[in-house]
Amino acid sequence: MDKKKLRVAITHGDTNGVGYELIFKTFAEDAMFDICTPVVYGSAKVAAYHRKMLGIAGNCHIISSAEAVEEGRLNLVNCFDEEVKVELGRPTPESGQAALMALERAVADCRDGLVDVLVTAPICKAAIQSPDFAFSGHTEYLADRLEATVPPLMILCNSTMHVALATAHLPLSAVPAAITPELLDGKIRQLYEALRRDFRLSAPRIAVLGLNPHNGDDGLMGSEEKDVIAPAIARLADEGIPCFGPFPADGFFGSGAYTRFDAVLAMYHDQGLAPFKALAMEDGVNVTAGLPVVRTSPDHGTAYDIAGHGTASPASMRAAIYAAIDIWRNRAAYDEENSHPLEHLYHERRSESSRPKSTPQEGEA
Amino acid sequence: MDKKKLRVAITHGDTNGVGYELIFKTFAEDAMFDICTPVVYGSAKVAAYHRKMLGIAGNCHIISSAEAVEEGRLNLVNCFDEEVKVELGRPTPESGQAALMALERAVADCRDGLVDVLVTAPICKAAIQSPDFAFSGHTEYLADRLEATVPPLMILCNSTMHVALATAHLPLSAVPAAITPELLDGKIRQLYEALRRDFRLSAPRIAVLGLNPHNGDDGLMGSEEKDVIAPAIARLADEGIPCFGPFPADGFFGSGAYTRFDAVLAMYHDQGLAPFKALAMEDGVNVTAGLPVVRTSPDHGTAYDIAGHGTASPASMRAAIYAAIDIWRNRAAYDEENSHPLEHLYHERRSESSRPKSTPQEGEA
Repeated sequence: MDKKKLRVAITHGDTNGVGYELIFKTFAEDAMFDICTPVVYGSAKVAAYHRKMLGIAGNCHIISSAEAVEEGRLNLVNCFDEEVKVELGRPTPESGQAALMALERAVADCRDGLVDVLVTAPICKAAIQSPDFAFSGHTEYLADRLEATVPPLMILCNSTMHVALATAHLPLSAVPAAITPELLDGKIRQLYEALRRDFRLSAPRIAVLGLNPHNGDDGLMGSEEKDVIAPAIARLADEGIPCFGPFPADGFFGSGAYTRFDAVLAMYHDQGLAPFKALAMEDGVNVTAGLPVVRTSPDHGTAYDIAGHGTASPASMRAAIYAAIDIWRNRAAYDEENSHPLEHLYHERRSESSRPKSTPQEGEA
Repeated sequence: MDKKKLRVAITHGDTNGVGYELIFKTFAEDAMFDICTPVVYGSAKVAAYHRKMLGIAGNCHIISSAEAVEEGRLNLVNCFDEEVKVELGRPTPESGQAALMALERAVADCRDGLVDVLVTAPICKAAIQSPDFAFSGHTEYLADRLEATVPPLMILCNSTMHVALATAHLPLSAVPAAITPELLDGKIRQLYEALRRDFRLSAPRIAVLGLNPHNGDDGLMGSEEKDVIAPAIARLADEGIPCFGPFPADGFFGSGAYTRFDAVLAMYHDQGLAPFKALAMEDGVNVTAGLPVVRTSPDHGTAYDIAGHGTASPASMRAAIYAAIDIWRNRAAYDEENSHPLEHLYHERRSESSRPKSTPQEGEA
């Protein structure tokens, strides 16, 4: 398998948040340069401001194009020359615009193959809105710009859990109507595929949560479980996709049941993310499945409340970079195996009986 | 203060679940009899069945009325003589009916003052439905039968957290419309009062969560935060009730912000309970504030999947009993202080300047 050192595009995110702090702290460890070549998409001036203000030593290799990237250095593609006023701790039109310019440039370079994977620092979704960005988040923007053939799937993961969202950035009032048989069918298949291809789990088991408190208590508090969710699970299970449920969300996380599945499909944002983040501590990563480019991000926001304090933990950013690299390699290995269907029969089937036999096995039961 | 040993009414809950196992395991520790006098509301026959099946030694003091309660024994008020077929691990009409008969008897004895506090073992809400029980849960039933003057407030707590629910047993689709200024005003006041009276926190700080993902991201994904929740918080904060927010649920639990508040008001069931149970481990307790009787319960359900296995942990049941006793004493102390407004000025005000001064303090700034 190709073990080349990957080029990791990292956008600077909202310039009034903790983006640069996370990047500087992550690459303050020399070992990071052994596993990847970072290509930050940002602004030389804003980066210098943050570095000085935080008192973090080091320097960036400022370049005007990713074609000039050098290994072993913290490359920074200078995406714009305008002065951007940094007002730490709150969104401004400038910080949103700066985030967008870096993101656009990074996405263009992903499309052109100048970088291998994309890691995005947090943005403020309200500040970044503009005629060029009318999306509810990174995920939706990237689906559009990278021409995803299906809506992407948001998966939060750490070393012990994968939590995916059937619906993500919707008002709570729009969630119940969005939970349709077609949606669930698509999301469960997409999650199953991502677990196999991106995470290399050969027979992943998926738990699906209910929508209502206590799964609706047999119809007393909502009937979506009986009418929509359970039938969708049953159809896919019949097809051989190992999915189970629905499970009431509170008991599922409270009893530790999540440890007995490879992934969980939550019905909506807070149902999955509130318990995930409560449990994941610092190393949670957001993975966007279903894009042609590998994209990950830290699982937290701009952290305006501590921007500039120097106290932000880079653990989630670092985990996001590791995850992006792992997923790129997993996909490559999966795709290589699956491009030779005759040869990989042996890899796919685990039973001893499918091993090629060198001699006739007589007398076996 | 009155340090009498309290009589704790404990209902047996759904007879096909883990109720009896929790009760037997809890009172297998002799020390429990030093802190309370248990009065189980159940069935002598069903109790005997469970005890034999689980192989737990000990015996109950079977009585026909709580007037015959004896200290130091596991009293069991035999609420019915019918045979009840025990079918461990699944709800049946019989198990629901048995739960209801015990609950009705316990509530009657609470009203008559024969017991001091009420702890309920888990029921199956679908199985217990009948002409006599058309409620979405214990909480709603008790509010009706005990003639609560306001709808009760569900508070989940353990040693580090109190999480209350603005809405509880509603279909998810009914939640957004239920979040009104009046509801929030009432629930925040009720929570504040419960923290002061039931938990004896003199100046509790309350965090209020948002309804939509990321608090609606400034209106991109729902506007209830701006239109309803933030104004309700502001009005009460102006009045001097220390409430804050709204906070997005995922970041709030993910960043550990919950450790900086005395309580959290979640907008709906899973938003509060999924992260609470994920974090609370085994010692979570459900407290019903706003009833004339102190009522607590374990924070888990009937646990049909392990009923009869002998593996159920009594930790939450035990914590529920401790909490009920603490709350009874807290209320008594609070009410006593507040019944003598002139005398308790000194207790309530913490500032040194409010201490009675024995001599004139001249020359003080």
